[in-house]
Amino acid sequence: MPRPPVGRDTTLCMSLSGRPGNFGSRFHNHLYEAMGLDFLYKAFTTRDLSAAVGGVRALGIRGCAVSMPFKEACIPLLDGLAPSAAAIESVNTIVNDDGRLTGHNTDYAAIAPLLRRHGVAPGTPFVARGSGGMAKAVVSALRDEGFRHGTVVSRNEAAGRRLAEACGFRWQAEATGAPLLVNITPIGMQGGPEAEELSFPEALVAGAQAVFDVVLLPSETPLIRCARALGKTVITGMEVAVLQAVEQFRLYTGLSPSEAQIAAAAAYARS
Amino acid sequence: MPRPPVGRDTTLCMSLSGRPGNFGSRFHNHLYEAMGLDFLYKAFTTRDLSAAVGGVRALGIRGCAVSMPFKEACIPLLDGLAPSAAAIESVNTIVNDDGRLTGHNTDYAAIAPLLRRHGVAPGTPFVARGSGGMAKAVVSALRDEGFRHGTVVSRNEAAGRRLAEACGFRWQAEATGAPLLVNITPIGMQGGPEAEELSFPEALVAGAQAVFDVVLLPSETPLIRCARALGKTVITGMEVAVLQAVEQFRLYTGLSPSEAQIAAAAAYARS
Repeated sequence: MPRPPVGRDTTLCMSLSGRPGNFGSRFHNHLYEAMGLDFLYKAFTTRDLSAAVGGVRALGIRGCAVSMPFKEACIPLLDGLAPSAAAIESVNTIVNDDGRLTGHNTDYAAIAPLLRRHGVAPGTPFVARGSGGMAKAVVSALRDEGFRHGTVVSRNEAAGRRLAEACGFRWQAEATGAPLLVNITPIGMQGGPEAEELSFPEALVAGAQAVFDVVLLPSETPLIRCARALGKTVITGMEVAVLQAVEQFRLYTGLSPSEAQIAAAAAYARS
Repeated sequence: MPRPPVGRDTTLCMSLSGRPGNFGSRFHNHLYEAMGLDFLYKAFTTRDLSAAVGGVRALGIRGCAVSMPFKEACIPLLDGLAPSAAAIESVNTIVNDDGRLTGHNTDYAAIAPLLRRHGVAPGTPFVARGSGGMAKAVVSALRDEGFRHGTVVSRNEAAGRRLAEACGFRWQAEATGAPLLVNITPIGMQGGPEAEELSFPEALVAGAQAVFDVVLLPSETPLIRCARALGKTVITGMEVAVLQAVEQFRLYTGLSPSEAQIAAAAAYARS
């Protein structure tokens, strides 16, 4: 159904990001319209994070997605953290309850359900590549889901060691084989300098059972393409993006869309 | 044409008001759509004006209408005042040029063109009733348009005398007759305690040439109805609201809608 005219009663949700994309706006606005909600979603960037978050509070903006480079910097500006954000000291979602701002991390929250959905058991040894904010969310979620045999691989040795040790895993400089391979680097990302590269060598992909790539665009990275060709279980960045956005939607609206509504919004947001 | 999907490239404009209405949202959004602009307008209120204006700056919100009770309080939060706002130390419009906020007053700017449009010459003696923020805009505009023989009537003697003296007019407690009668009080306003009352006695209306009522809703106040019945020239609050909103639109977008587009947006906003 067409959305009602935007006005004083419309609830605004938004995002703050260094380089705003359109996935969130398209996904959320599609769901608002499909479900007949007088909500609206708009992506923003800012040069003044403190004033931007102050604006979220003062204008009664219901929710705010937070992306690079604001995920940790926003924490002192909030009134509290939900367990998902406290677990990793990283916020990707702010919920505004009548002026009280709570930080959540729906990326973290999305990881365990996705692994379960694809039948990847917590006993599975893994190698995860990356040491940034998203790597913290994924590796922490693996630990909290009961994964015990893991290795963090990263070019940034200090950050990689810190993340590995914080979660009780090992660090190493170069990838080795494991049944579960997880890419949490920009390797394979559309428009990036390593867009055509595999984040794990083909021989390691061939020896794995499942491959998980958090890169959102393209939806089929070189790693995912290679893993599919070899008949492996694959989990894509698009699945993470959709599942975390659904969790944001629930936090903002208190409503749960149907699987069909989620699929339609995801297809629209991808297009 | 239907508006493009709201996303990162959509320019947001907004309003800040103690009690937000929907006239601005409806008027501006209708024009954006009619002119194919990727702009969006949304009304807000706030309990923290300073953080709200900081949010306008930090989020790159292009423009912000300002209503009661924020028209004077916002001035110290801005980076400069345009002549229309400096003339009366009252802001009803903030324009954000890449983080630099300038206060304007499009109510003030709308008064002289309206009087000219209705053939009310600056020589016409007037009696204006009211001493609030809008009265300041109207009475100052009359003075700056060259009206020299004027009387301010108000229940609040201190505010009325201050306004009258600042503009070189007289103050008195009770209305007397004049060729131009101007109501700048809430008398006759829909939902208010004096909704059914005439802001000037019928005998004074009968003796006037023109009657100007700034009350927006209803579009036909008891005063306007009385003046129309007596065949007087009338200027309504709706005309002020539309003309000042068009000026805001020009400031925000740099574009001038056609008379037909303005009429269509005004009809939609009123409905």
